Amino acid sequence: MASVGTVLPQQMSFDTPLALRSGATLGHYTLHYETYGTLNADASNAVLVCHALNASHHVAGEYAGQERSEGWWDNLVGPGKPLDTNHFFVIGINNLGSCFGSTGPMHLNPQTGKPYGADFPVVTVEDWVDAQARLIERLGIRQLAAVLGGSLGGMQALAWTLRYPERLRYCVAVATAPNLSAQNIAFNEVARRAIITDPDFHGGHFYEHGVVPKRGLRVARMIGHITYLSDDSMEAKFGRDMRAGGPAYSTQDIEFQIESYLRHQGDKFSEYFDANTYLLITRALDYFDPAREHGGDLSRAFAIARQHKFLVVSFTTDWRFSPARSREIVKALVDNRIDVSYAEIDAPHGHDAFLLEDPRYHGVMRAYFQRIAASLKTGGQDE
Amino acid sequence: MASVGTVLPQQMSFDTPLALRSGATLGHYTLHYETYGTLNADASNAVLVCHALNASHHVAGEYAGQERSEGWWDNLVGPGKPLDTNHFFVIGINNLGSCFGSTGPMHLNPQTGKPYGADFPVVTVEDWVDAQARLIERLGIRQLAAVLGGSLGGMQALAWTLRYPERLRYCVAVATAPNLSAQNIAFNEVARRAIITDPDFHGGHFYEHGVVPKRGLRVARMIGHITYLSDDSMEAKFGRDMRAGGPAYSTQDIEFQIESYLRHQGDKFSEYFDANTYLLITRALDYFDPAREHGGDLSRAFAIARQHKFLVVSFTTDWRFSPARSREIVKALVDNRIDVSYAEIDAPHGHDAFLLEDPRYHGVMRAYFQRIAASLKTGGQDE
Repeated sequence: MASVGTVLPQQMSFDTPLALRSGATLGHYTLHYETYGTLNADASNAVLVCHALNASHHVAGEYAGQERSEGWWDNLVGPGKPLDTNHFFVIGINNLGSCFGSTGPMHLNPQTGKPYGADFPVVTVEDWVDAQARLIERLGIRQLAAVLGGSLGGMQALAWTLRYPERLRYCVAVATAPNLSAQNIAFNEVARRAIITDPDFHGGHFYEHGVVPKRGLRVARMIGHITYLSDDSMEAKFGRDMRAGGPAYSTQDIEFQIESYLRHQGDKFSEYFDANTYLLITRALDYFDPAREHGGDLSRAFAIARQHKFLVVSFTTDWRFSPARSREIVKALVDNRIDVSYAEIDAPHGHDAFLLEDPRYHGVMRAYFQRIAASLKTGGQDE
Repeated sequence: MASVGTVLPQQMSFDTPLALRSGATLGHYTLHYETYGTLNADASNAVLVCHALNASHHVAGEYAGQERSEGWWDNLVGPGKPLDTNHFFVIGINNLGSCFGSTGPMHLNPQTGKPYGADFPVVTVEDWVDAQARLIERLGIRQLAAVLGGSLGGMQALAWTLRYPERLRYCVAVATAPNLSAQNIAFNEVARRAIITDPDFHGGHFYEHGVVPKRGLRVARMIGHITYLSDDSMEAKFGRDMRAGGPAYSTQDIEFQIESYLRHQGDKFSEYFDANTYLLITRALDYFDPAREHGGDLSRAFAIARQHKFLVVSFTTDWRFSPARSREIVKALVDNRIDVSYAEIDAPHGHDAFLLEDPRYHGVMRAYFQRIAASLKTGGQDE
C-alpha cells in the first residue's frame, strides 16, 4: 500500500466571529488543514478526520525534505489503505487552541498585541466542530460522507452527529467515551497542576518571559503516557528491567528501563508542545458530555442522530477509555434504533492501539469504509 | 470495642552500624516505636505491624490532648478488635528514612553537621526489616507471634519470613505484591520527577534554603491518590459533579469536585510530608523483589519460609496491587506446601480498602488472629 506521498498544509482564515460555549467570541481565526485524494463531482466522498490531544491536521503523507514526517494516521489513510484515498477525499483540520498552526495561545491577541497565552478562550469539542463545519462548507462540501476520530477525535465525530446531523452520513468513533470519568478528569487535573505550578508557567504568559514550563510539561506527558499504555504492554516491554550494571541505589538516577522511557517521552514532548494548548485540550476533554443537556440521558442526546450510521470501535486493554465506555455509546444508539456496528478489538496495546496497525482493527475499518464507498455509488444508500 | 487509649511514642537508639543493601552503612540511628497490650511471660504474644508509605509507628490509640490523633490502623488494633490487644502485645516501628521520628533525611548527618537531605542512604525493605529485628531483640522477643503489614507494610512482612525465618511464626500480608509492576514503578517515577524538578527541591538539600518543594509534593500526592482509589469509588464519590454554579470555563480554576478533592489532599500532604522521605520510600517499593536473587522464581524464594503460616488478603477493586499479584504470592507458598489462607475481599474502595473497616475483611483478620491467639496456649501449635 502506498503513502499519499508528499503533502502541503493549507490554511483558511475566517472573519465571521465564532461564538464559543464559554460565552467568549473569537473574532478572527485561521485553521490549518490538509487534504488527500480527490473530491468527486458531487462532493459526496469527503471524510473529515478529527485529531486527539497530541496530533494535528497532518494525518497522512510526508513533508518534502523532512525525514520521518509521516502523518499521525498514515497507516490508516492512503491509496489502498483502510480509509482509501482512491475513493475518498480526506480532510485533516488542526483544532483551535492547538500549537500546530491553527489560531492558538501562541498567536497574537489582537486586543493586546501580545500572545494570547492563558487569555486564549477556553474551547470545547462543540466549538471545534463549529469551526470545522465552517471550513467544510467553504470547501464546497454540503454533506460529509463520514467523520472519523479516535479518543478525543472520536468525541468530535460524535459531536458532529449531534450538532450538524444533516451534514454527515457516517460516524466512526474509535477508542472514545461519551464523557470522561472522575478518574480521567483526575489524571488531567494532576497534569494541569504540574504545568500551572511550574514557576516558568508565569500564569500562562511565559512567552513574554522567554521561558517554557518544561518541568510541568514533562510530568504531564509522563502521566499521560502511563494512561495510554496497558499495564500488560508496559510489563511486556519494560517489566522490571534495570539499566545495565544493576541497581545503583539512587532515588534521582534512572534505575529501571521504564523510567528511562518515560523521561525520554517527557523530554521530547516538552520540546515541542505548548503548555497552554495542553491545558485547553485537556479541559475540552473534561467538559465533553453530550448527555448533560439531556438530564444525563445519553439515549435522549442521540435521538437527533437517527439518520446516521455508526461504527464504534474499542480495544480490550484500553483502560483510559475502556470498552465499557464504548458500549455506553452503542447502547444509546441502539435505544434509538440507530444503525450501529460495534467492534471490540482484542489488542494488547491499551489506548494507543487506535493509532497502531492491528490486522483485525484495520480489517474492521477497511470493511466499514468499503461499505461507505459502496453507498456513494448508490446515491447515499447502502446497497 | 474500645481504643487502646492514650499512648506514648518511645524511642530506642542503636550504635552498632547497620550495613545497608546499597553498600552504605548507618553508624548510629534511632527508631521511634509504640506498643499496645502486654507482653506475656514467655514473650510469645508479640505482633509487629509494619507501615506503608504515609504512616508511622503510631498504629493505634491517641496522643493526649490531640484531637483526631488516632493511629492509622486504630480500627483494627485494640481491645476486642480484630488484632486484639487483650491477647497480643502489638508493636509499631517507624522505618528508617521516615519523617515521623526515626532517623531520616531531616536529621543531622554526623559527618557534615548538616541535615542528611538527599545524602541519606537509600534504604530497602530488607534494611528496614534488619533494623526492626534489632529493636525486637532488644525488647526481649526471640520470636514474634506474627508480622502484619498492608501494601508496602505487607512487603516487609514477607521479607521477615525470608530474612528471619526463625523469628516469627505467622505472616499476614494484606493488599501487597511480590514486587512492583512496570506501571507501579512508572507512577512512582512520575511522582519523584515532580518533586526532584521542583526548583525548591535544591537537589534534596532544601532544608538549608528554608523552603519545601511543595509543588512537587502536591503533584506526587495527587498521583498517589488516584492509584489508591478504585475507578468505581471515585466515580461513586465524585463522578462528574461540578462546583456550584456550573462551568466557569477555566483551565486553572476548579471546575469538578474531584479536582477540589485532589488539590486538598495534595495541599495537606505538602504541609507535613518530607520530600526526601517520599523519594526513599517509593524507591524501597521499586527495589523490593525477593524473587530476583532466585532467577525470578518466587517459589524458590519462599522455600526458606516453610515453617511459617501465612494469611494473604487482597481486594477486588485494588488496581495498584491487584488480587492477581496476591495470587502470585499464594502460588509460590502453595508450591512449597506452606500453610496459607487466602481471602479476596469484594470491596469497592480500591487499594485504600486495607485501611478501612469492612466487615468481611475484618472478619477474616479477626478469625486469623484468634487462630494465632489459640496457638499461643498450645505452645505454638494450632490445636
